[in-house]
Amino acid sequence: MATSEQSGSIKKTSGGVTAARGFRAAGVKAGIKIADRTDLGLLLSDTPCAAAGTFTRNAIRASSVDWCSEHLPSSSVRAVICNSGCANACTGEQGENDTAMTAVLTSKVCEIPTDSVLLASTGVIGKFLPMDKIEKALPEAKNALYSGGGTDFAAAIMTTDLVKKESSVEVMTGKGVYSIGGCCKGSGMIHPNMATMLGFITTDAMIPAEFLNPIVKRVVDRTFNNLTVDGDTSTNDMVLVLSNGASGISVAQKEELEAFENALYIICSDLCKMIAADGEGATKRVEIQVKGASSEADAKKAAKSVAGSNLTKCALFGNDPNWGRIACAVGYSGAPFSNESMTINLCGVTVFRNLQPVPFDEKMLHEKMKEKVVTIEIDLGIGNSTAIAHTCDLTYDYVKINAEYRT
Amino acid sequence: MATSEQSGSIKKTSGGVTAARGFRAAGVKAGIKIADRTDLGLLLSDTPCAAAGTFTRNAIRASSVDWCSEHLPSSSVRAVICNSGCANACTGEQGENDTAMTAVLTSKVCEIPTDSVLLASTGVIGKFLPMDKIEKALPEAKNALYSGGGTDFAAAIMTTDLVKKESSVEVMTGKGVYSIGGCCKGSGMIHPNMATMLGFITTDAMIPAEFLNPIVKRVVDRTFNNLTVDGDTSTNDMVLVLSNGASGISVAQKEELEAFENALYIICSDLCKMIAADGEGATKRVEIQVKGASSEADAKKAAKSVAGSNLTKCALFGNDPNWGRIACAVGYSGAPFSNESMTINLCGVTVFRNLQPVPFDEKMLHEKMKEKVVTIEIDLGIGNSTAIAHTCDLTYDYVKINAEYRT
Repeated sequence: MATSEQSGSIKKTSGGVTAARGFRAAGVKAGIKIADRTDLGLLLSDTPCAAAGTFTRNAIRASSVDWCSEHLPSSSVRAVICNSGCANACTGEQGENDTAMTAVLTSKVCEIPTDSVLLASTGVIGKFLPMDKIEKALPEAKNALYSGGGTDFAAAIMTTDLVKKESSVEVMTGKGVYSIGGCCKGSGMIHPNMATMLGFITTDAMIPAEFLNPIVKRVVDRTFNNLTVDGDTSTNDMVLVLSNGASGISVAQKEELEAFENALYIICSDLCKMIAADGEGATKRVEIQVKGASSEADAKKAAKSVAGSNLTKCALFGNDPNWGRIACAVGYSGAPFSNESMTINLCGVTVFRNLQPVPFDEKMLHEKMKEKVVTIEIDLGIGNSTAIAHTCDLTYDYVKINAEYRT
Repeated sequence: MATSEQSGSIKKTSGGVTAARGFRAAGVKAGIKIADRTDLGLLLSDTPCAAAGTFTRNAIRASSVDWCSEHLPSSSVRAVICNSGCANACTGEQGENDTAMTAVLTSKVCEIPTDSVLLASTGVIGKFLPMDKIEKALPEAKNALYSGGGTDFAAAIMTTDLVKKESSVEVMTGKGVYSIGGCCKGSGMIHPNMATMLGFITTDAMIPAEFLNPIVKRVVDRTFNNLTVDGDTSTNDMVLVLSNGASGISVAQKEELEAFENALYIICSDLCKMIAADGEGATKRVEIQVKGASSEADAKKAAKSVAGSNLTKCALFGNDPNWGRIACAVGYSGAPFSNESMTINLCGVTVFRNLQPVPFDEKMLHEKMKEKVVTIEIDLGIGNSTAIAHTCDLTYDYVKINAEYRT
């Protein structure tokens, strides 16, 4: 299948958040996590960036989320400092002070204004940040910055993630080439309602914040906000997009903005798939494609309802073509469908049409379901709107990881 | 603790759906289930009953749900026939015909009108009812009917349930004594939005259908509709309440109706707790008590959000006092709370207040969490409304049961 990912003027590259020119990054061990792994990531732009972000809709927000949402959109962002191992959420006034102090320390070490620093945290809720460890590690992070450091940054923000999650593209335009690159983390407590658990995207295109902001909101709404691992919307979710213009290519005309939005969609969609595939305990990635809906909102409702069904996700783990659970989840989603022409395909096999079972070879479908990516196609049969939701199966290991998380 | 269950004019009894006079019941093996267990339950009233019901809000409903909702409320119900092992949902026109035929066969065997028969089914979605087996077993069920048969009926409707679920009370009034008794089944696909997976309640009080109907809706809304095992609202949910008046005691005056509603609440609340405790794979029952909400709707939102959090339920399985997940679920519930006075107690221990952690003895709380019943109390701190939600922990065995369900 020819995909938009390879077509036209967009080419996949590597490098994550340092794929774009003028960005340097690093990841170091501050000792915030119990495990002996890097846990402090620093991203620095050589010049001020236009920046936009989307944030969790959870009413209980980490102070890092408050800090970023107060500072964005902006035209003068220089750095992002992100720790893993401690969410610094539900930590009250001390948590707020620690967030502000982290920004101050970062600004001193990097010799940039305090309000040009963005922050993010991920890890256990209700614990305080070890400020002494962060203060000690910051100069080390500053010294480790380099133009190939995107992958170190991506590693430093991981918690229960098993793999680093990076994506980047080059966009060819009449004026030349610019890059967009991103990374994210996320494995559990994933049911973004605005943005998922920490995504960072950079570009060396020159795109003003007032254009960047609505594009980021639209793209996140079509990607991260249609992703679920476990139905739990985190306190710390955010996606940040930084544009430093280092390519010298401005993005401001209608077609330029559309091309940028398309490229950003590819990055975010890619990162979503990586999170779904690396969902806590997951053995497979699951994509729910809904079409024939009367509106995009209804298509999303149906897709997200199936993506959120524990029973469906256990059946997927067991490679059990128990499609009744999918139909059930469509039924309680609230999305209207046609009694006559609603159709469900599982791994390309039609199993349900016209509110009746369609006979199929159970053994064959059981085998097909063992693939690393399982697709569920649902045609609601009453309109032309579509949506895609991303998730994974629900397994013993999800329970194990989350029953033993802190003990 | 003195509970309303023992107080005043209400006394707990035994007998389930045959605790009330004038009802007989039976459960027989029709061979619908693969396992060698009873799977066809019959409940017969000696005289016509006033009857009311509540039904799933899933847009995909089993034809048994359609049948009952079309016939209720009614003043002439005589029998309920219920099979387990096959939900007869998503089975189209043949499914509807099978439902109607089951009512016809039951009416013939019991010598009662067809439209006095109510039906319920539970089991795998998308399979057709084995009508030959049902036709063969019905006379046997009729012959097995007796006034102590409530427990046989309760056994015949079980699927993944490990225990029978029955509750009954005697209500002492100035006019004499009447009984209310009920049973239910439910273990997975439990997130009722109107009623849970099959509840049957009988009374020998004489209460007109027009009074019965609103009482049933209110009580179900405060009990079964606040219960969740896995967030999946089934296609077959229903609660039926039958009143045959065999006690000779009429319930029609304001105080009489209130006493009846209170007694019905005790039965439904009891049955809810039994379903939660027997949730698929559960090792413990969990009760989420919310107070201080600005409305009952908000109290429910917060309670159900915590009850539906996979992460919270895994932590409960691991006896991990990871209260941040509870706070997170309150945060994304949409229920307003006070930043100053919102409080979370876990097993009676305050862990979070004023948006800040409250220090506690982790080891002690870890031990307390090993009890069979864990209580989470949340005070939203801004009003006087309350709600209780019922659930269980999320375990390896939930995944195992639902990955292997049909294989």
